[in-house]
Amino acid sequence: MAMRLFMKGELAGLRSAMREAISSFAEVSSKYRDLDMPGYTHYQRAMPTSCGVWLGSFADALGDAMPFVDALGTMLDQNPLGSASGFGIRNFPVDRDLTAELLSFARVQENPIYAAFSRGYFENVFLQTFSQPALCLLRFASDLLLFSTAEFSFVRIAEKFSTGSSIMPQKRNPDTVEVLRGKLCAYLSLQNQVQGLVSGLPSGYHRAFSLLKRPFFEALDVISDSLKIAAMLASSIAFNESALKRAMTEELFVTERVYDYVKRGVPFREAYGMVKREFMASLDKSGASK
Amino acid sequence: MAMRLFMKGELAGLRSAMREAISSFAEVSSKYRDLDMPGYTHYQRAMPTSCGVWLGSFADALGDAMPFVDALGTMLDQNPLGSASGFGIRNFPVDRDLTAELLSFARVQENPIYAAFSRGYFENVFLQTFSQPALCLLRFASDLLLFSTAEFSFVRIAEKFSTGSSIMPQKRNPDTVEVLRGKLCAYLSLQNQVQGLVSGLPSGYHRAFSLLKRPFFEALDVISDSLKIAAMLASSIAFNESALKRAMTEELFVTERVYDYVKRGVPFREAYGMVKREFMASLDKSGASK
Amino acid sequence: MAMRLFMKGELAGLRSAMREAISSFAEVSSKYRDLDMPGYTHYQRAMPTSCGVWLGSFADALGDAMPFVDALGTMLDQNPLGSASGFGIRNFPVDRDLTAELLSFARVQENPIYAAFSRGYFENVFLQTFSQPALCLLRFASDLLLFSTAEFSFVRIAEKFSTGSSIMPQKRNPDTVEVLRGKLCAYLSLQNQVQGLVSGLPSGYHRAFSLLKRPFFEALDVISDSLKIAAMLASSIAFNESALKRAMTEELFVTERVYDYVKRGVPFREAYGMVKREFMASLDKSGASK
Amino acid sequence: MAMRLFMKGELAGLRSAMREAISSFAEVSSKYRDLDMPGYTHYQRAMPTSCGVWLGSFADALGDAMPFVDALGTMLDQNPLGSASGFGIRNFPVDRDLTAELLSFARVQENPIYAAFSRGYFENVFLQTFSQPALCLLRFASDLLLFSTAEFSFVRIAEKFSTGSSIMPQKRNPDTVEVLRGKLCAYLSLQNQVQGLVSGLPSGYHRAFSLLKRPFFEALDVISDSLKIAAMLASSIAFNESALKRAMTEELFVTERVYDYVKRGVPFREAYGMVKREFMASLDKSGASK
Repeated sequence: MAMRLFMKGELAGLRSAMREAISSFAEVSSKYRDLDMPGYTHYQRAMPTSCGVWLGSFADALGDAMPFVDALGTMLDQNPLGSASGFGIRNFPVDRDLTAELLSFARVQENPIYAAFSRGYFENVFLQTFSQPALCLLRFASDLLLFSTAEFSFVRIAEKFSTGSSIMPQKRNPDTVEVLRGKLCAYLSLQNQVQGLVSGLPSGYHRAFSLLKRPFFEALDVISDSLKIAAMLASSIAFNESALKRAMTEELFVTERVYDYVKRGVPFREAYGMVKREFMASLDKSGASK
Repeated sequence: MAMRLFMKGELAGLRSAMREAISSFAEVSSKYRDLDMPGYTHYQRAMPTSCGVWLGSFADALGDAMPFVDALGTMLDQNPLGSASGFGIRNFPVDRDLTAELLSFARVQENPIYAAFSRGYFENVFLQTFSQPALCLLRFASDLLLFSTAEFSFVRIAEKFSTGSSIMPQKRNPDTVEVLRGKLCAYLSLQNQVQGLVSGLPSGYHRAFSLLKRPFFEALDVISDSLKIAAMLASSIAFNESALKRAMTEELFVTERVYDYVKRGVPFREAYGMVKREFMASLDKSGASK
Repeated sequence: MAMRLFMKGELAGLRSAMREAISSFAEVSSKYRDLDMPGYTHYQRAMPTSCGVWLGSFADALGDAMPFVDALGTMLDQNPLGSASGFGIRNFPVDRDLTAELLSFARVQENPIYAAFSRGYFENVFLQTFSQPALCLLRFASDLLLFSTAEFSFVRIAEKFSTGSSIMPQKRNPDTVEVLRGKLCAYLSLQNQVQGLVSGLPSGYHRAFSLLKRPFFEALDVISDSLKIAAMLASSIAFNESALKRAMTEELFVTERVYDYVKRGVPFREAYGMVKREFMASLDKSGASK
Repeated sequence: MAMRLFMKGELAGLRSAMREAISSFAEVSSKYRDLDMPGYTHYQRAMPTSCGVWLGSFADALGDAMPFVDALGTMLDQNPLGSASGFGIRNFPVDRDLTAELLSFARVQENPIYAAFSRGYFENVFLQTFSQPALCLLRFASDLLLFSTAEFSFVRIAEKFSTGSSIMPQKRNPDTVEVLRGKLCAYLSLQNQVQGLVSGLPSGYHRAFSLLKRPFFEALDVISDSLKIAAMLASSIAFNESALKRAMTEELFVTERVYDYVKRGVPFREAYGMVKREFMASLDKSGASK
């Protein structure tokens, strides 16, 4: 019961952390809508896109997770009070509708075996619901670590989110992003741990349910912190425009040249061959490496 | 695109399999509402409950998963057509609203990087959504295997769901239930496999996405078959009434005796002590083992 | 470095905990060699075996894990000192062979990138090595929970390993075994968490390595405690001989009757059919349920 | 039994694939011993190292896995024949020592319950043993994907291991490396699947063991192919020397300048501060961005 009320409270906090993260990403997405950046496939530069499109992808993914958050809200909003370790209290006239109303639950969880089954099961559904934003922010952190290497140099992590090295005075390390990435990996394992604890058990209350608390609480802290930190990282993001410009090489526009031929009536396969030959010739001339 | 349409179709099939499983469990739940059965906690007999309450717990748990299925439907109902490996087609006038309408999508997935990100991510959300019913049926299978042991003998698995032994002519094995349990364990691992494949990747299309199909399709088959088989197992369930009656031992009613004292004004702690002494005395008299 | 020395110390402690657990199981295995118990397949009584054979299976499984423990010892016994975050110290004359000798390492870990790679990787190999005994003890705990149900009643958990119920004065719960089972499930997830943290990273030291400590240390505590508790549970095990005798029903010997016919020259398939008919007839006569 | 013989055969094949991969990495490691390359920490250039040291780290890690492979060989080398679903054959005089000798097993697996327990358990230990090389090759693949981006350009993937794009005529994708990385992720999940199938079961043969074959065989194929492909990728590796030279920037040698001061008697903390000031001043002068 206390756990159910606790979960409802946590969900409210996470819901507003989600909304703030969505706003942050949406805001910087429109700010950098027209700042060109290479789009990548197979870890290779592919076709032109923009920093705004990249940042917007996280806003959209987080937004699509909200209906699942609502579904979780509906699931949690039932009062288990009066189920007594799973078998109901037959002897006492506990007015479960009344306690549901007093405790602001939308309905009563009628079935006492299901109320006991909810232990661990609800924790697992809770963590699964937020593994969507977790995966989404993991993608963001992976991109940031790549884009902030000296070799890419697209992004500069704000000073407050990085630290110095103990033996290399010139170095700035993206510690916050590394920890964000690591914590989100841990989040996925913690959900796995909660699921593993309940997945093989028969019906009824089990002593092992007491082992759920530690991984569940730790995971809640991780996702709550991660949403906040990701929002701050997004808001404070700074792009290196000259590095981005250098990366918008001619090869990113090769496909557009194919499409130009196609629009002039050349069949696609033929146009592809023509442009490939042109491109290879230009490489040979310039002697460019890759 | 083909994958998105495929997912929408699969979801429709699974939604009706869910509804049928819920009906099956609800039906046998009301049929056996008044057939007493011991409730268990810590693997030990605890307090009285009924076969109907036990079966109803699965109907309720499956029912609570439906809002998540609806949320999944909303997520899938967006048209990715025209995003071309993640970066949009700038040159061709693809009317994405029109193709969305023609293909019966509710809306367009605007952001092309998010459309590419959806590969693997949507598969993972899909499998996660159905890991709720998977966990629920895993509980049902675990209970069935326990309740159909010779020692419990509460339940008889229908002949069509069991097989004989190659060297023991007298033996009936609950093969179908064992396979159901094993397949549901595999389902949880297959979801894990899909998640593992995408969780560390940066933005953009990756060749490794082609490795998603096998575990995703296998998992879809497992959950679809499992819902159907569980519904059939529920519908055909047969209880051994004499074994259930034998198991409804006096000790299950001890707590009710405590409550009786409480209702007559004895403080709970004192009533608990009184009943414990009475119970121990009766054990000594009968010389009962355990 | 400090971590490598710490691991060597932990390994020594776990090696002796393993040896003690093996002795405990071996001792009770020979003590109960001739106490008959039904052997189970498919959760059903199958053929006769003995309590000693059951307990001996854990001694043998733990014994087979020892060569892996030795392999782990060999892996850990190399000195990483002087590798400085993965790239060696070129400027200072650190005599790595000397420090290896002083710190009692068998050899030097020459490659500085491998020394950095060992972070997380060695923790993972360490936890994997002990996931063998973890799985073995998980099997023991699962069996104990089943065998100590009122329905089986084969085993009585010693009083010191069980607790009472808050509302059911007559009840003894096998709390220690439930917690053992739950903790061992958590162990497997903690190994998974360590593996997940390092599995997607490129070469070099990463800030996320600092997140390894918590799950690694927690897992070490779990496996160390589990080995000790399992050894105590084994040593103090008490069998309910009358319940075991009741469970050695006629059907367990049916296969032996088939073999008797075979020894007298009847082909196996025919003997199987004959005994099946005899057995079914005897069931009909006695009107026995199941 | 057939499975045990099969495992022994597979192990022999994998052992030689391991040896070949170790040789390949060792060979290219000495070939490129003196080719400088930046060492990375926190995804950032840190201190100088060499291509040979990087490649040698994989040879050393694979080498350290060999004692575990030997331990696995010892575990598998016991004859389970004659254990009959876990309970022995009491009636027939099967000479288990003789069949062990005829089938070239080193010893007999005496305990019939342990022989049944080995189903799934041995498969799991087998896959765990090779998850060490899997993690090691996953590191190699992750590095390769990073080092072959246009931005790093340290490594060129041989033409036979890459493919073209359907719409981008100029593009070469490192498909083989992407698939290698994805398959190794799948390997770790398949081990997880095998472990999940057996981890909650009580003693005895179970029908669910038949579900082990598919993930086990698939995982064996993955690790066998991965070792071969990684060896080929290593042997055919080509470095872009000019890109490596460009990446060996002044900042990599900053720590060596600190050490120079220290050798001349300046305390470390003070030397660190001096070099940091010098380095910042040089940055300001050149106006270099990051």
